Amino acid sequence: MSDYAIGVDLGGTNLRVATIHKSGEIMERLSVPAKVHEGPGNLLGRIGATVNQAIDQLKTKGQEPVGVGIGVPGIIQMDRGFVEDAPNLGWKNLPVRKHLEKILKCTVILENDANAAALGEKWMGSGQGTNHLCLLTLGTGVGGGFIMNGKIWHGFRGMAGEVGHVNIYPDGVACNCNGQGCLEQYASAQAIVREGEKAARKGLSPKLRHELGRSGKLTAKTVGHQARQGDNVAQAIYADAGKALGIALGTIMSLLELPLYLLNGGVAAAWDLFAPAMFAQLEKGAYMYRTGGIRVESGKLKEDAGLFGAAYLPFCK
Amino acid sequence: MSDYAIGVDLGGTNLRVATIHKSGEIMERLSVPAKVHEGPGNLLGRIGATVNQAIDQLKTKGQEPVGVGIGVPGIIQMDRGFVEDAPNLGWKNLPVRKHLEKILKCTVILENDANAAALGEKWMGSGQGTNHLCLLTLGTGVGGGFIMNGKIWHGFRGMAGEVGHVNIYPDGVACNCNGQGCLEQYASAQAIVREGEKAARKGLSPKLRHELGRSGKLTAKTVGHQARQGDNVAQAIYADAGKALGIALGTIMSLLELPLYLLNGGVAAAWDLFAPAMFAQLEKGAYMYRTGGIRVESGKLKEDAGLFGAAYLPFCK
Repeated sequence: MSDYAIGVDLGGTNLRVATIHKSGEIMERLSVPAKVHEGPGNLLGRIGATVNQAIDQLKTKGQEPVGVGIGVPGIIQMDRGFVEDAPNLGWKNLPVRKHLEKILKCTVILENDANAAALGEKWMGSGQGTNHLCLLTLGTGVGGGFIMNGKIWHGFRGMAGEVGHVNIYPDGVACNCNGQGCLEQYASAQAIVREGEKAARKGLSPKLRHELGRSGKLTAKTVGHQARQGDNVAQAIYADAGKALGIALGTIMSLLELPLYLLNGGVAAAWDLFAPAMFAQLEKGAYMYRTGGIRVESGKLKEDAGLFGAAYLPFCK
Repeated sequence: MSDYAIGVDLGGTNLRVATIHKSGEIMERLSVPAKVHEGPGNLLGRIGATVNQAIDQLKTKGQEPVGVGIGVPGIIQMDRGFVEDAPNLGWKNLPVRKHLEKILKCTVILENDANAAALGEKWMGSGQGTNHLCLLTLGTGVGGGFIMNGKIWHGFRGMAGEVGHVNIYPDGVACNCNGQGCLEQYASAQAIVREGEKAARKGLSPKLRHELGRSGKLTAKTVGHQARQGDNVAQAIYADAGKALGIALGTIMSLLELPLYLLNGGVAAAWDLFAPAMFAQLEKGAYMYRTGGIRVESGKLKEDAGLFGAAYLPFCK
């Protein structure tokens, strides 16, 4: 078996490819714009061309990859290699595996991107040395993945790990899933922006109001910046996100008693802003956490977790 | 390997023993009072004597059991065969396995009682034909167990399955775990009695008030009886329990996407009273449930689930 695999991280903005040695060393990285607006077929072509570039590079060293793993932000039918729905990529019911195996002439494995990130952290990140972990991706939305007994837990149809839809407040904010009060409505970048803009419009925070007036919109980063500058309202928004995360994590601990919980994604970078409220909620509300021995951390691999996990997929096949 | 195993279900009131054939047929049943108040050593002795009676019966047929499985209402250190804490039995840090293997001269396997019930339903009950399920025991408290890939999920220290401590209302009723708003505070017999007695004292339900005055206390059954007689307050108490169950089940579905959720225990017998509100909540709040293909049912084996699961333990060892 070859010692190299290729991992692909499919974001809505960039398509990132890495050739990784089985030791975890990255041999080569490529990144090209995804240009999702140019259509599903175009994106498939760009993936094919970029991965082939990495394969060619490997061939100059007399090597071939054991396979190509791809982390997809969407729902995957693993057995058929179909992407059922990946709204950010504009993919719907697309036979991605079959198409790419034809172009690449090697094994292709599709995986949900949050599951891939969980596997990446287990392989080369904060999860080294444990067989069980839960990873939360705090981005535009909130996603998640479970590693149990060293493997991704898929659920009976491949839809497990929807941590963003853990119910936090039964009669809370309406969610895209048609439910109410899901974690995603409190701990995602979208939720932070929503609350920031609401506070700005109400005039509760002159700083946020000024920022909104100036640029026409807020981002989770600008809200975070104002929080660090001492704005109480912005601080409270991040604290609410932290409390919601603490509630969700406490519930997952009670159910599964995993030893490790990792937070990745853009919002996780604001650890200083939400973590105190998260840990306060865990101390107060989660007896499993209080028994000790459970770690809640920011994932070591950060935005590379999905790339590592995708590359690891062909190695564990 | 022998075709017979012995299962033990350790309740706070009765100690039940069954000799079960590997086909699932019950060959013999024994039940004796647990007499927990007579102390931990006495209970161990009663278990030993009753199981030995079952073993002797088997010997008259020229058979021996493959082993003895015991469902314990408490926290177990599986590797050491220790019962760490089983408050209803008065057991604390007791080397139960070692002690019983000495008396019984055969393999003894300890398991948490809710985990055993989940395994029992998988083996011979509603879970036949699936490899993944979640079982909730709605009794005095709320417990639970997960079967994933055909096996009990224990967590990293054997404490998984605490479904009773899924957070439902973050600022809700105080729980024994020192948290607030846990499922157990809404869907257990204790919770139903608490709400019934509160309503009775406030005079909100003349029927419940009369019942409380007459007997000095309510039970989940008497509240259920009044609900079936048309008492709105009693009906609302069960509907609140159903809503809480729907919230918890929706969260578990989002996380693990298991195909089957079973409700057992005394309160589950009031299915007609809580299930409509539970399913209404699932339809409204759980998109994973709305995708279809997920079953939520009352467990077929009822109070025998734990007995079957305990007996199955030596077969799967």
